[in-house]
Amino acid sequence: MSNTPFSTLSEFQTLLTGMPAANPKAAEAANDHNGQLTKPPGALGRLEDLAIWFASWRGEATPRIKRPQVVIFAGNHGVAALGVSAFPPEVTEQMVLNFQHGGAAINQLCKTFGAVLDVHPLSLDTPTADFTQGPAMSESEVVSALQTGWQAVDSTSDLLVAGEMGIGNTTSGAALAYAQLGGDAQDWVGRGTGVDDAGLALKARVVRDGLAANPAAATDGLQALRCLGGRELAAMAGAIAAARHHSIPVILDGFICSAAALCLHKTDKATLDHCVAGHLSQEGAHAKILQAIGKEPLLDLGLRLGEGSGGALAIGILQGAVACHSGMATFAQAGVSDGD
Amino acid sequence: MSNTPFSTLSEFQTLLTGMPAANPKAAEAANDHNGQLTKPPGALGRLEDLAIWFASWRGEATPRIKRPQVVIFAGNHGVAALGVSAFPPEVTEQMVLNFQHGGAAINQLCKTFGAVLDVHPLSLDTPTADFTQGPAMSESEVVSALQTGWQAVDSTSDLLVAGEMGIGNTTSGAALAYAQLGGDAQDWVGRGTGVDDAGLALKARVVRDGLAANPAAATDGLQALRCLGGRELAAMAGAIAAARHHSIPVILDGFICSAAALCLHKTDKATLDHCVAGHLSQEGAHAKILQAIGKEPLLDLGLRLGEGSGGALAIGILQGAVACHSGMATFAQAGVSDGD
Repeated sequence: MSNTPFSTLSEFQTLLTGMPAANPKAAEAANDHNGQLTKPPGALGRLEDLAIWFASWRGEATPRIKRPQVVIFAGNHGVAALGVSAFPPEVTEQMVLNFQHGGAAINQLCKTFGAVLDVHPLSLDTPTADFTQGPAMSESEVVSALQTGWQAVDSTSDLLVAGEMGIGNTTSGAALAYAQLGGDAQDWVGRGTGVDDAGLALKARVVRDGLAANPAAATDGLQALRCLGGRELAAMAGAIAAARHHSIPVILDGFICSAAALCLHKTDKATLDHCVAGHLSQEGAHAKILQAIGKEPLLDLGLRLGEGSGGALAIGILQGAVACHSGMATFAQAGVSDGD
Repeated sequence: MSNTPFSTLSEFQTLLTGMPAANPKAAEAANDHNGQLTKPPGALGRLEDLAIWFASWRGEATPRIKRPQVVIFAGNHGVAALGVSAFPPEVTEQMVLNFQHGGAAINQLCKTFGAVLDVHPLSLDTPTADFTQGPAMSESEVVSALQTGWQAVDSTSDLLVAGEMGIGNTTSGAALAYAQLGGDAQDWVGRGTGVDDAGLALKARVVRDGLAANPAAATDGLQALRCLGGRELAAMAGAIAAARHHSIPVILDGFICSAAALCLHKTDKATLDHCVAGHLSQEGAHAKILQAIGKEPLLDLGLRLGEGSGGALAIGILQGAVACHSGMATFAQAGVSDGD
């Protein structure tokens, strides 16, 4: 793809280590502005930190959120054939149609918060390889998915949520976490769409076998993404990186999105500085991934749907934070006595 | 006021014990509908419970949120003269002007979530009496404030947030909690707008003296509201009751709002069944009040501003929940295979 500044995994890795930083002058100006607003210092809690963080990435003291974008990537997984999901693999494509027809949860959430929704199915007829037998993707497959993710980001948007759909992908997410963060395989798997105890045990075995078949996944984030990820996970990673390239702040969604983000974090800890965690998923070990990437979730409402739903729900929180920051009167403007 | 179905505290109390219940048929229909939506069962977590709860109070299987209303009541407190706040009492009126001119946090949040904002200053030139010396309000004063709150609710709205402004009112809220829930006075006070340790100790002493001067506040919720509350707290209680009368679900705001709600709960535990807790405030012992009234907060973002800000921020969560519930396609409609 002509507009993608990488065509190999190694070029993508190089790109990740030289990403733009937040604007310190905008951060300082936003912080000063925050201190003059008609409220007791700190009374808006995390909303204040969020607004200043957002301002620092947008490079403006008093930014607005006018064009939030949600991108959903869909992929199919070789491991789905092993029976790791409560739903059959054809549901991935059925749900893509549901997204396109406006019937899914993410459609309603995008409407609620005024976000543009773009849906990108990735080679659904060609599932990734069964990663218990070797790498899920070849280098060209993972690079192609990263490029799709990169290209999906509208450079004129001012906030991004990346979501996913892919029957079997909580197993892929668990494998990525297990490979990169260690511990026991069974601690990283969860019930996903609703598997029973036998399904849970199967998922743990698949995750364990996956790392055994792909030892490179333990030491290199992008190799982990290639060997144990899926096309939609790689596309999310590409989109998160593209957002950084365009100075667009990102709200991470749940378990799968965070597992994809973890692969970037493993490559360079600073790659996720433009991201906040939208919510804490009910799925498996999301909290442990968030701890590893140093993010505190904005919401904790027991969601475990994917599709970017938890991230989209958090758009409202960020809109509220930025609206207060950039729209409130100062003590001087309003003629309100301050506390001194 | 001619449209208010009570003119004494005793009539208000009688009204509270005969309030309409949720619609069980709508709840059942909403629950059935939820089970058919294109998502794994339970995957939207608390959003599903919220939507079904909202449907049960609106009496419709698939309701919408079209007209959320935020009402702010402002009052002045006799105890403010004792020095319990970091801000001078004139800030109450200055902030009312700020609300009216659109410069406060609550204005930005209402714009963000499409809520109508109404501001009601209550006799700001006449602070309540110093409750360390006797009742804060006479019966006619508290009834008048309850009536203002009742009348402030637009019967055509479909969601209500009640907020407040009143220098000194965290002390009033703490006194209400201490009188009705017991324990140590110092455990109920917090830093409010930002008092220091000496201010905190003063607040605890004022709260203790308040109950000593008004022993009836320990046994009767509405007497507590009269003796230790303030006009804006009574108005919030009146608004919460009016919303129930009109089958309008309520999102409670933080510490002060919950302390006012506690007075209704003390009168009849069922009076808050149409309410959810919007957020957990950073202020004092909000968590303990929420526990006492059996509410789990939707958000926990360290806010301690009042004005209805935490409740208004949670409007977005409820809008998302209801939009998913009422807007999503069913498995049959979307042609998606379910998990069976």
